Amino acid sequence: MTDRLDRQIAFLMEIDRLKHVYRQTYLLDRSRHDSDVEHSWHFAVMALVLSEYAKDTIDVFKVIRMALIHDIVEIDAGDLCVYDNKDPESRRAVERRAAERIFGILPADQAKELIGLWEEFERRETPEAKFAAAMDRVDPVLHNCYTEGMAWKDHDLSIGEVMEINSRIGAAAPELWDKVQALIRSCAENGHLKKDGHKKQ
Amino acid sequence: MTDRLDRQIAFLMEIDRLKHVYRQTYLLDRSRHDSDVEHSWHFAVMALVLSEYAKDTIDVFKVIRMALIHDIVEIDAGDLCVYDNKDPESRRAVERRAAERIFGILPADQAKELIGLWEEFERRETPEAKFAAAMDRVDPVLHNCYTEGMAWKDHDLSIGEVMEINSRIGAAAPELWDKVQALIRSCAENGHLKKDGHKKQ
Repeated sequence: MTDRLDRQIAFLMEIDRLKHVYRQTYLLDRSRHDSDVEHSWHFAVMALVLSEYAKDTIDVFKVIRMALIHDIVEIDAGDLCVYDNKDPESRRAVERRAAERIFGILPADQAKELIGLWEEFERRETPEAKFAAAMDRVDPVLHNCYTEGMAWKDHDLSIGEVMEINSRIGAAAPELWDKVQALIRSCAENGHLKKDGHKKQ
Repeated sequence: MTDRLDRQIAFLMEIDRLKHVYRQTYLLDRSRHDSDVEHSWHFAVMALVLSEYAKDTIDVFKVIRMALIHDIVEIDAGDLCVYDNKDPESRRAVERRAAERIFGILPADQAKELIGLWEEFERRETPEAKFAAAMDRVDPVLHNCYTEGMAWKDHDLSIGEVMEINSRIGAAAPELWDKVQALIRSCAENGHLKKDGHKKQ
């Protein structure tokens, strides 16, 4: 048991490093980028508050477990802007190695369980993974809409690109996607998101 | 429905402010204090990984919901060192007003649910609230043990004070408390926590 608990504590201390992995999105007061841990917490609370909008019947606890652990691989793999993922195959390999190293600190049964949960989230096939993927996007979209598109401006994105990359919200939570689309359009109408659908050359 | 969703989004944006409420404890790399949001996430993951040590049968999902929302009142009430709570009655009143204001942004049914969950956590009577209270303490104790007692030194605490304030861990998770006590003792033996049991005058 001591070895088991030692492994659990070692894992819990290792993941403290996720607090230093910063993302593209800004906090609402615009003082700095948010971190993976801040996003994971916000994603989890969003899943709790917005679960009624899920198109399918979902196990909300599973979605929240996904929220809590989905970004832990970025301790090794770092944050990557969703709009800049040009080589998804090698990105997946890096994240897979990270999952094995970090969750592998845990006792074997828990490592297997959390790697399985992370893989389920990544595959986006189950109702929980689809809803979790939607919440994972709702968080940065809301942060952008409430900071005059700060992170979108940094990446010179257009409304078409933002709508496309976030359309998975609609597949998992249609009513919520209607609202999010309205917020994105309003952001564009107020001049905070390019309307043309093309990046500058 | 629009008004309902508007209220939910307003709540989710309001709680972004919890990312700016800093605590007494330091991150493991010692670069700065941790925040309420970082602690809430870590507390939730600890509950997930360490639930097998609960003395009673617990609903882990309820414990994790408590973890996610338990510090939201500190957006208004601020962080208070557990060793410095000299007037718990007026502190409770401040936190109660904060809960009503912040959770009250939500639709009435969700506000009632989350205020109820927060109150259950605060009362520490149910098995879930007791285990959650233990996890709420395990997090800062581990951070102190892994940073040579940094926050304990800031508050000039002795091993007796640290053992006493954290003894609730033992009531909810005896085996875990054995381990935590060993870590605290080791911290004291290495000169990072006063042994005398008395504060300096």
